[in-house]
Amino acid sequence: AQAAPPELNQLPAIRWRLASSFPKSLDIIYGAAETLSKRVAALTGGKFKIRVFAGGELVPGLQVLDAVGNGTAECGHSAGYYYVGKNLALAFDTAMPFGLTARQQNAWMYAGGGIEALRALYAKYNVLQFPGGNTGTQMGGWFRKPIKSMADLRGLKMRIPGIGGQIMAKLGAVPQTLPGGDIYPALERGALDAAEWVGPYDDEKLGFHKIAKHYYYPGWWEGGPQLSFYVNQVSWKALPEQYRQAFEVATAEANQLMLAQYDAKNPPALLRLAGQGVKLHPFPKDVMLAARRATFELYEAEAKTNPDFAAIYRPWKLFRDTQFQWFKVAEAAYSNFNYYVK
Amino acid sequence: AQAAPPELNQLPAIRWRLASSFPKSLDIIYGAAETLSKRVAALTGGKFKIRVFAGGELVPGLQVLDAVGNGTAECGHSAGYYYVGKNLALAFDTAMPFGLTARQQNAWMYAGGGIEALRALYAKYNVLQFPGGNTGTQMGGWFRKPIKSMADLRGLKMRIPGIGGQIMAKLGAVPQTLPGGDIYPALERGALDAAEWVGPYDDEKLGFHKIAKHYYYPGWWEGGPQLSFYVNQVSWKALPEQYRQAFEVATAEANQLMLAQYDAKNPPALLRLAGQGVKLHPFPKDVMLAARRATFELYEAEAKTNPDFAAIYRPWKLFRDTQFQWFKVAEAAYSNFNYYVK
Repeated sequence: AQAAPPELNQLPAIRWRLASSFPKSLDIIYGAAETLSKRVAALTGGKFKIRVFAGGELVPGLQVLDAVGNGTAECGHSAGYYYVGKNLALAFDTAMPFGLTARQQNAWMYAGGGIEALRALYAKYNVLQFPGGNTGTQMGGWFRKPIKSMADLRGLKMRIPGIGGQIMAKLGAVPQTLPGGDIYPALERGALDAAEWVGPYDDEKLGFHKIAKHYYYPGWWEGGPQLSFYVNQVSWKALPEQYRQAFEVATAEANQLMLAQYDAKNPPALLRLAGQGVKLHPFPKDVMLAARRATFELYEAEAKTNPDFAAIYRPWKLFRDTQFQWFKVAEAAYSNFNYYVK
Repeated sequence: AQAAPPELNQLPAIRWRLASSFPKSLDIIYGAAETLSKRVAALTGGKFKIRVFAGGELVPGLQVLDAVGNGTAECGHSAGYYYVGKNLALAFDTAMPFGLTARQQNAWMYAGGGIEALRALYAKYNVLQFPGGNTGTQMGGWFRKPIKSMADLRGLKMRIPGIGGQIMAKLGAVPQTLPGGDIYPALERGALDAAEWVGPYDDEKLGFHKIAKHYYYPGWWEGGPQLSFYVNQVSWKALPEQYRQAFEVATAEANQLMLAQYDAKNPPALLRLAGQGVKLHPFPKDVMLAARRATFELYEAEAKTNPDFAAIYRPWKLFRDTQFQWFKVAEAAYSNFNYYVK
């Protein structure tokens, strides 16, 4: 064996803290940060250690962007669309209603200019972003009564945060923002008529099916929501190149693994829910059409007043439209034959 | 900085050779091995170097499994279904007709028991397997004349290797196995009536659209074909743990990146081809139905005589069926609305 090169001997012991936005109960999402931490340690002979804190342990779950930007934590795991109050363009980092699927989001991020576009935006918050997991298309949520047309949305009190909630409001519903643990009691006492959360695997744990039997799809506001890892820009600059490589490659692995885990665990959960009397329904076509119309009205209006949004939206929209023209050919024809043709 | 732990100082300089099955002209697929090599070097301070050889440089492209198994190369990049002559069960590592999509393959591999099942099989060949890229659903190929029904397959000379070719033969076609570079001249002089290759991005480079204008979809024999990295078992055991970690995480990254690159590059290629008069057609329904019937007859027959096949096929089939029950709900409803509903 040759002698180790100087830079390898001189690699320092480094300890980082990772502020997650997520509770441990969302085990697949929370687990992505643990996946990252373990792999980075193993890649660096245990010298670069990242300690993971669940949402609320270090900072509240919805303050992770600030915490990483100001150095309270060197890194974090969160979702851009939690911070649309700062800038609606941050939602491109997670999911846009009627936007990209998980695969299309990866294509945009890793090979279509997405990472570059988002990093230019996050730099304003002193943060570097890495894709950090995806749930796949989420479900549309749990409804106490069936939704047969647009008329049934009028006055409907639904737990749905973010842009999805803004669109639902345009459609006549009354969106609510509640943390996961508060949804079940609100549904139970009738303070909510409906609630969306994630998909079968996570929803089952919260027990919504015991109160609201009508389970709608798809979650058109979350066709392929991506989580992200954040790193403080100053901390990143101070990191040896070999550790940067370890961190970056570990985020890529975590991004892929989360989707694989959801895809493996959602199907049996769906079958268990169906066995308990849950009724699956697609959203009515008039609701889908009205939602899409309202969505693109919102995008166009935002692009007129928010240059950050416009800078990402225009190329993103072109990328999306071109993706759809290809995916409708081989990929969708193959899947649709397998799923629907007996 | 603390002193480096002993194991880090003692990490040896290691040089491996990687035998790829692929030519450099398949730049995205060939590039996955370069992605792996660069990342592994960067993760190990340049001490673990992997030199990539294109198909034919070190060994012929279809002999990579043997070359890695016998130590001619320490590692390789290939596709399990090239070796169905040894064992049809190796095709589960790539693609089975009417089998998993790319996302479903990842779910099976990383979170559904797939890697464990395939590694038990590859151990017979002295090889350790890692998922190493995916093209997404491929196209069904280029046809000189339209295929309107089963009758048009009778006697059709088509370049289609592997299990897809076996099924095509059951449907009355005459499958041919030709390397990529020989397809165009054979189509031109009429020795072939049709040929499948990959998808728009790769097909465009070979120019099939200049001779055969009818471009069919989907490639029902390759719904989500996965490439794999192979490592010689003895070489793997001799590798320090930190290098194993580097290799493994780099394969995961390469697996994800290849799909993202295909998904980013196929859509504009499809639009360019359409601009040159290419006619897109779905395979007729009777062809799809007959192909699926023949496919599962082949699987059931093989499972009766090949215990390796049966051991993987039974749980794989259950996994596949359950995947389809979930993917048809949120994911397909979302995609189909986006792609087809105006």
